[in-house]
Amino acid sequence: MYRMVLVRHGESEWNLSNLFSGWTDVDLTPRGEEEAREAGRLMKEEGLSFDIVHTSVLLRSIRTAQLALAEMGMAWLPVVRHWRLNERHYGALQGLNKKQTAREHGAEQVHLWRRSYDVRPPALDPDDPRHPRNDPVYADLAPDVLPATECLKDVVARVLPYWHDRIVPQLRRGLVPLVVCHGNSIRGLQKYLEQIPDAQISSLNIPTGIPLLYGLDADLNPTGSRYLGDPEAAAEAAARVAAQAAIE
Amino acid sequence: MYRMVLVRHGESEWNLSNLFSGWTDVDLTPRGEEEAREAGRLMKEEGLSFDIVHTSVLLRSIRTAQLALAEMGMAWLPVVRHWRLNERHYGALQGLNKKQTAREHGAEQVHLWRRSYDVRPPALDPDDPRHPRNDPVYADLAPDVLPATECLKDVVARVLPYWHDRIVPQLRRGLVPLVVCHGNSIRGLQKYLEQIPDAQISSLNIPTGIPLLYGLDADLNPTGSRYLGDPEAAAEAAARVAAQAAIE
Repeated sequence: MYRMVLVRHGESEWNLSNLFSGWTDVDLTPRGEEEAREAGRLMKEEGLSFDIVHTSVLLRSIRTAQLALAEMGMAWLPVVRHWRLNERHYGALQGLNKKQTAREHGAEQVHLWRRSYDVRPPALDPDDPRHPRNDPVYADLAPDVLPATECLKDVVARVLPYWHDRIVPQLRRGLVPLVVCHGNSIRGLQKYLEQIPDAQISSLNIPTGIPLLYGLDADLNPTGSRYLGDPEAAAEAAARVAAQAAIE
Repeated sequence: MYRMVLVRHGESEWNLSNLFSGWTDVDLTPRGEEEAREAGRLMKEEGLSFDIVHTSVLLRSIRTAQLALAEMGMAWLPVVRHWRLNERHYGALQGLNKKQTAREHGAEQVHLWRRSYDVRPPALDPDDPRHPRNDPVYADLAPDVLPATECLKDVVARVLPYWHDRIVPQLRRGLVPLVVCHGNSIRGLQKYLEQIPDAQISSLNIPTGIPLLYGLDADLNPTGSRYLGDPEAAAEAAARVAAQAAIE
């Protein structure tokens, strides 16, 4: 009945240097750019066409969408950007090295911050320059809606109004949306769509740059989903993401 | 720093006949129409001007806005309608007589449904023609976002994304919005803005058709609010609303 595609942005500079990024506005690496173009090629080969594109307000999702769409010859598509699609805010951990943080706080504590559903990392002080209140990107918003830190549960709560208010009405009108965002905002959408229990969602590994095609029935329940391209490549990419999380 | 006005719609047909209305799409009475025009006159006398108008998708709020704006010579203003500004959904009580319901279920139970923060009235069956799933007005939405019943807490949760995503960015850009909606959606906004405790919010009585002017500081905290026109008239109108609730 309805179709849409979700894409996680390609490798970013801070993925590469193993820093917690969250809402830090880091760019794609050359490899991340190539992943984005490859996402475009996969969607083109599948014969997909979109009516509207949604990204977060973070550069790595914006550029992933731009590179993928250019590859499809669809750079002209209307694009909407919204903070509700942003990556999870990593609080005071943003900008810290993941290994170093594990040494300081213990691997178990870091694992809890990264993989629990409702444990937030330490919050940023409102005066911290990394706090979104101090970033002109978010100047249009009320201060108390902007997170100083987030757990995955918080991300789910702030992503869903965007799903219900912006994406669903477009699906209902017959538009096919492309949503390019982040590991945790995609987890939030998938948790809701597939009713994944709290305890399982953070171990869902989403490969970067591999388009995930969803079919939805008249009630917007998924009828199926699959990664485009070689299924083995998608599984390997998800395993790489999982392995990266395990060794950090 | 910022200004906005909230208006509760004028008397509806089901206010008059003492039926639970909720999301039922009843029209204004002639008295309700006059209240709407008077709201327009009060805003005109105050010298107010707006840039954008928000209403629910229910006729009584839409027509209150239309009548008030025509009175101000501002019928041309852009209007946005949204289900998140709707009245509280009253579940299976919708369409029932309030007195009769009190006889059937006991005055105490009805008082609980009407005045508690987190107790929902009995839910509508999904197949009930009164369920919003079966109303083309809501055809653009996901079925599970549409309520079969709501408590005030539910209303607060669904109103706030509208505040944060639609109204706040307009305030931030210097626009002055007029919001015309319902007793409980206004309660939801006021609860948030003025940090009114759960236990107190349902006893906040909002007079119909009397514009409530808010000033907000740079952080969108209220610097003050007042009802336009004669303060005694506003107090009397609020007392009438309270008395109506008490005798029902």
